[in-house]
Amino acid sequence: MKLEQIETPAALIDIARMQKNIARMQGHMNTLNVAFRPHVKTTKCIDVVRAQIAAGARGITVSTLKEAEAFFAAGIDDILYAVSIAPSKLPRALALRRQGCDLKLVVDNPTAASAIAAFGDQHGENFEVWIEVDTDGHRSGITPEQDTLLEVGRILHENGVKIGGVMTHAGSSYELDTPQALAALAEQERAGCVRAAQRLREAGIACPAVSVGSTPTALAATHLEGVTEVRAGVYVLFDLVMHNVGVCALDDIALSVLATVIGHQADKGWAILDAGWMAMSRDRGTSKQSHDFGYGQPCLLNGTLLPGYVVSGANQEHGILSPTQADAHADDITQRFPIGMKLRILPNHACATGAQFPEYHAVAPDGDSVEWRRFQGW
Amino acid sequence: MKLEQIETPAALIDIARMQKNIARMQGHMNTLNVAFRPHVKTTKCIDVVRAQIAAGARGITVSTLKEAEAFFAAGIDDILYAVSIAPSKLPRALALRRQGCDLKLVVDNPTAASAIAAFGDQHGENFEVWIEVDTDGHRSGITPEQDTLLEVGRILHENGVKIGGVMTHAGSSYELDTPQALAALAEQERAGCVRAAQRLREAGIACPAVSVGSTPTALAATHLEGVTEVRAGVYVLFDLVMHNVGVCALDDIALSVLATVIGHQADKGWAILDAGWMAMSRDRGTSKQSHDFGYGQPCLLNGTLLPGYVVSGANQEHGILSPTQADAHADDITQRFPIGMKLRILPNHACATGAQFPEYHAVAPDGDSVEWRRFQGW
Repeated sequence: MKLEQIETPAALIDIARMQKNIARMQGHMNTLNVAFRPHVKTTKCIDVVRAQIAAGARGITVSTLKEAEAFFAAGIDDILYAVSIAPSKLPRALALRRQGCDLKLVVDNPTAASAIAAFGDQHGENFEVWIEVDTDGHRSGITPEQDTLLEVGRILHENGVKIGGVMTHAGSSYELDTPQALAALAEQERAGCVRAAQRLREAGIACPAVSVGSTPTALAATHLEGVTEVRAGVYVLFDLVMHNVGVCALDDIALSVLATVIGHQADKGWAILDAGWMAMSRDRGTSKQSHDFGYGQPCLLNGTLLPGYVVSGANQEHGILSPTQADAHADDITQRFPIGMKLRILPNHACATGAQFPEYHAVAPDGDSVEWRRFQGW
Repeated sequence: MKLEQIETPAALIDIARMQKNIARMQGHMNTLNVAFRPHVKTTKCIDVVRAQIAAGARGITVSTLKEAEAFFAAGIDDILYAVSIAPSKLPRALALRRQGCDLKLVVDNPTAASAIAAFGDQHGENFEVWIEVDTDGHRSGITPEQDTLLEVGRILHENGVKIGGVMTHAGSSYELDTPQALAALAEQERAGCVRAAQRLREAGIACPAVSVGSTPTALAATHLEGVTEVRAGVYVLFDLVMHNVGVCALDDIALSVLATVIGHQADKGWAILDAGWMAMSRDRGTSKQSHDFGYGQPCLLNGTLLPGYVVSGANQEHGILSPTQADAHADDITQRFPIGMKLRILPNHACATGAQFPEYHAVAPDGDSVEWRRFQGW
């Protein structure tokens, strides 16, 4: 289908930009001499993940067991489920392992570690578990110097559970916006995770993998001594938040929402679009950053940016496109954006916007598109 | 399935609360002597809509043609597509009409009106069109006194397109929080829409339907003289935004997200949940209201509110539950919310949270649940 024929709203992936993003990250990982394990929660789309693997990725990271099941069914067996597991989900993890999936679990607390050990013992399954390390205080994990690290390690080790490694995610990198700060956090992430592995090893607990990553720190890292692999997700599409963080240009953003102008409020300088928050998502990640892009940055159908305009408001199925400066351009809004005109809107957050759609339309440089399915739910 | 067995995260509908909400709205509409046409964009779920129709609803309102197609396939034929139509969508609307769907379109501008007239003429189809009226300046529509109202009316009328009526949506009611302000806006919405109908009739253009509504104004209206029908959507489940607007109690909220405690950061007073923004949605509608509920209000599994706690932060698959007052309760967070404990989280916005899930789990008073599918996309 040609780009012009796609019904709106629709989620578009610019294939050339995506491939460029994949090559950039994989090339950087190759230079740093670490394996790369992409986080597939961004797209939940096998077509995208195949492109990541073709470029050199080794294994994948998932955020839900449904992702693990779907990607294992599609032929990928090296899977890290990177959320500390709720004990009630162990039967589902067991089912995957029994089918031959090399599923690795994550824990950051003694209770879950004990539950895995007991459940594995009960079912004769030798789970592989990675211990989550907290290197920036933004969410979960055990800090490298905490006693709990060795406690969890011992619970697993002494109960015969295989410890695959340690992993961390410096998600606070999303709040930074200078190369210096990102490089410093990348080093903090690396050093903290390596230190956790060292403490386990000193306690006689094998810890083969040292896994770090977030898109900003992965791209900012200049050396990764002691690290065996890196994880990152949103880099594959990028978005306005990543632009503000400073790790991509606007024309690296491979995801956009195709929208149609359906009305105007000329006196207010508004064009009304058929892409509201149901299409863009409610993510307003740029609202706290240096440049607030509202619900998205409008571009022409061919991808040309429209500086001076923003999607300033959104209802469920209505977006409001307006000039960024009051009164600027207001006179010509109906001429500039006539009814029926199609636009592409760059989103705040590719993970959130993609999740609003059952499929992407992957657009080649010649304007031809194919449908790439993605899935929803848990 | 019993409530305790449902895997997390999951979207729960409390059936008893939902039925109470349906009865309350339908009863109010009956008292005001107007027809009620629920907006099904909130749930996109035939099981919910059947309950609304069983209670007395006449026809439905939809926000997408996919909703129209899905609900028509399920046996509902009186459907108002309440978004000004993009001319490129007319073939899809035509296909529905040809199948026998009594689909009504909406326009608020001469270009779309002309496009409908031309397309209908070309295909020998007599579309029914309602004209959107702007009664509060918050989004789209034509204000009652604008010349464009009669212009659009004449384009349709003179080209043989059936004008079904006028419709308006006082969406700015979401920004109010007193009964007086809501009642005043309800009257403004009513009077403006009735006035638009009057102007069309005075110009010799029949205008049978006068359709108004939003959940807050529908519930606040004390008389609806000249109005033939009311539309509302979120009332069926309610949410924290509606609570802050003042039209429901917290224990009227029929939608919650079932979540499991998967970790702690005890020194920060955090319990980590397996419901992040992918489950709760990124909607933070209460952030600008009198009471900011973060990403949601925690309750026990039996629905008992947990005052003093909030889901204060969210990543994609992690929610952070914390005390609303720093230092309060922090000491006992691991005891109060042990690993594996299940909670129900009331959401900011039922329309946004529901959209994150492929299905609801509808829970009866005895704790038994059934799955109610909902659909995604356009």
